[in-house]
Amino acid sequence: MNDNSPSPLPRTPLTLLGTGAMGTALGRAWLAAGHPLTVWNRTPERTAALTAEGAVAAASAAEAVAANRLVVVCLLDDASVGAALEGVELAGRDLVNLTTGTPADARARSAWAEERGARLLDGGIMAVPPMIGAPGAFVLYSGRPEVFEEHRDTLAVPAGTEYAGADPGLAALLDVALLSGMYGMFAGITHAFALLRGTDVAPKDLAALLVPWLNAMAGSAHGTAERLRSGDHTSAVVSNLAMQVAGSGTLLRTAAEQGVSTELLAPFLDLMRRRLADGHGEEDISGLVELLRSR
Amino acid sequence: MNDNSPSPLPRTPLTLLGTGAMGTALGRAWLAAGHPLTVWNRTPERTAALTAEGAVAAASAAEAVAANRLVVVCLLDDASVGAALEGVELAGRDLVNLTTGTPADARARSAWAEERGARLLDGGIMAVPPMIGAPGAFVLYSGRPEVFEEHRDTLAVPAGTEYAGADPGLAALLDVALLSGMYGMFAGITHAFALLRGTDVAPKDLAALLVPWLNAMAGSAHGTAERLRSGDHTSAVVSNLAMQVAGSGTLLRTAAEQGVSTELLAPFLDLMRRRLADGHGEEDISGLVELLRSR
Repeated sequence: MNDNSPSPLPRTPLTLLGTGAMGTALGRAWLAAGHPLTVWNRTPERTAALTAEGAVAAASAAEAVAANRLVVVCLLDDASVGAALEGVELAGRDLVNLTTGTPADARARSAWAEERGARLLDGGIMAVPPMIGAPGAFVLYSGRPEVFEEHRDTLAVPAGTEYAGADPGLAALLDVALLSGMYGMFAGITHAFALLRGTDVAPKDLAALLVPWLNAMAGSAHGTAERLRSGDHTSAVVSNLAMQVAGSGTLLRTAAEQGVSTELLAPFLDLMRRRLADGHGEEDISGLVELLRSR
Repeated sequence: MNDNSPSPLPRTPLTLLGTGAMGTALGRAWLAAGHPLTVWNRTPERTAALTAEGAVAAASAAEAVAANRLVVVCLLDDASVGAALEGVELAGRDLVNLTTGTPADARARSAWAEERGARLLDGGIMAVPPMIGAPGAFVLYSGRPEVFEEHRDTLAVPAGTEYAGADPGLAALLDVALLSGMYGMFAGITHAFALLRGTDVAPKDLAALLVPWLNAMAGSAHGTAERLRSGDHTSAVVSNLAMQVAGSGTLLRTAAEQGVSTELLAPFLDLMRRRLADGHGEEDISGLVELLRSR
């Protein structure tokens, strides 16, 4: 995908709206793979990195959209998409909207595009710009399946592709679910490093233990998934809620000993205690999903 | 380590105090490897699983401690250790304390043992009982280095060993740091599953995306460690705090759309906002460690 040699086959030309850090990374991958690329950005100077590599800068969003049937949109937020495309002729266009938004944003923007004669595929990019074009980066897609099928080879150039379903909101929902999971993990990592500050343990030595530990423990999500499917949160429980609540006091007391705020840790321990108080001591922590959902 | 054939070499005999789920798993591993094992438990019936496999049950903790120089303690909490060993002759004994506690508990219990003529090595078990004897399980040790060196072959039978240092509190501190990191990740996983409840996405399909995603993102802890070492939180930043705070509204709005409480997610996003408000927008989120610590 970073092959700079001339391609033996013509590559699909496309338009890219938005050349921030992510748009630029995406554009570079397409250019490197030989795709003719038309670009537009609200601040025109920011297309320079891509025009230097062969992209054509359009004078307006309307001109950029007119240039190609496939239009990839990578702007700041959903409001920016509405502003950039206001009054632009979209009939017959395939819009691939990689702009971050909520599921409701994606559904509304899809209906808005359909009203204007376009087909919309929504995407959530599971990567930061330096990961684009490298293994591991992927984009979740949802919406018009025929748009995904027709353009999947082109879409696969900058990052792996995962098609989630026809509901245009699904990609955004999964995107947010993965990011929310990641921020939970980052909160745990932050707390762990804070506990070791001011001790003789080098941060890299904690990281060397923490990363493989988290990698091993993440696999418990498969068991959680199975319990959520079956509805039986007492199935194959290794460490039940009552045992985990009993052990959680050590975590809070250690934070106090080390002078670390428990603000990141306490909410999950509180949720465990509430579920235990509701009579679910024999359950796995998978049952907490039901409690979080019902509030 | 699960070799049941007769051993060509005599194995170190040892005593195990505490035969709950974890103690029983540990004892089984030592018996399977040919170590003569004396066991004691406050509720004597709970030694039956191990005596059936060849362990000798002692009538009292004092008798169990008298039987062997190496004494592994795996009780409910530090108070249970004090209660079990009150008045017991400990002189000349090597105590390996695998009971969960805080760093202060471990330091105080070590001093208490030294006063009684014993040497103490504290341990934190990074595994649940079914993982004992299988690859991946490990125990963090700290305290008397000569006790670790002398018994490391025996200690390596049920699980891998990691020696953290001479401060007896270090193993407990690292244990709690890893567990706290894990609970943060579990909070993120819980929130992610809650977002998808009531949608057409099967829990297993979320898990299939979430586990590799978390595994990939956990690696950022190495960069966090390097920034904490150097003190420069603006070094090699991929997505700075200002950008992450700007994006976080989508996570909160999506939770609201899906009817999911933000109680697990909001504290970390709040911490990011406070650090941004303090003028650290160009930093990596590694800088949050400083803020969490100073409260």
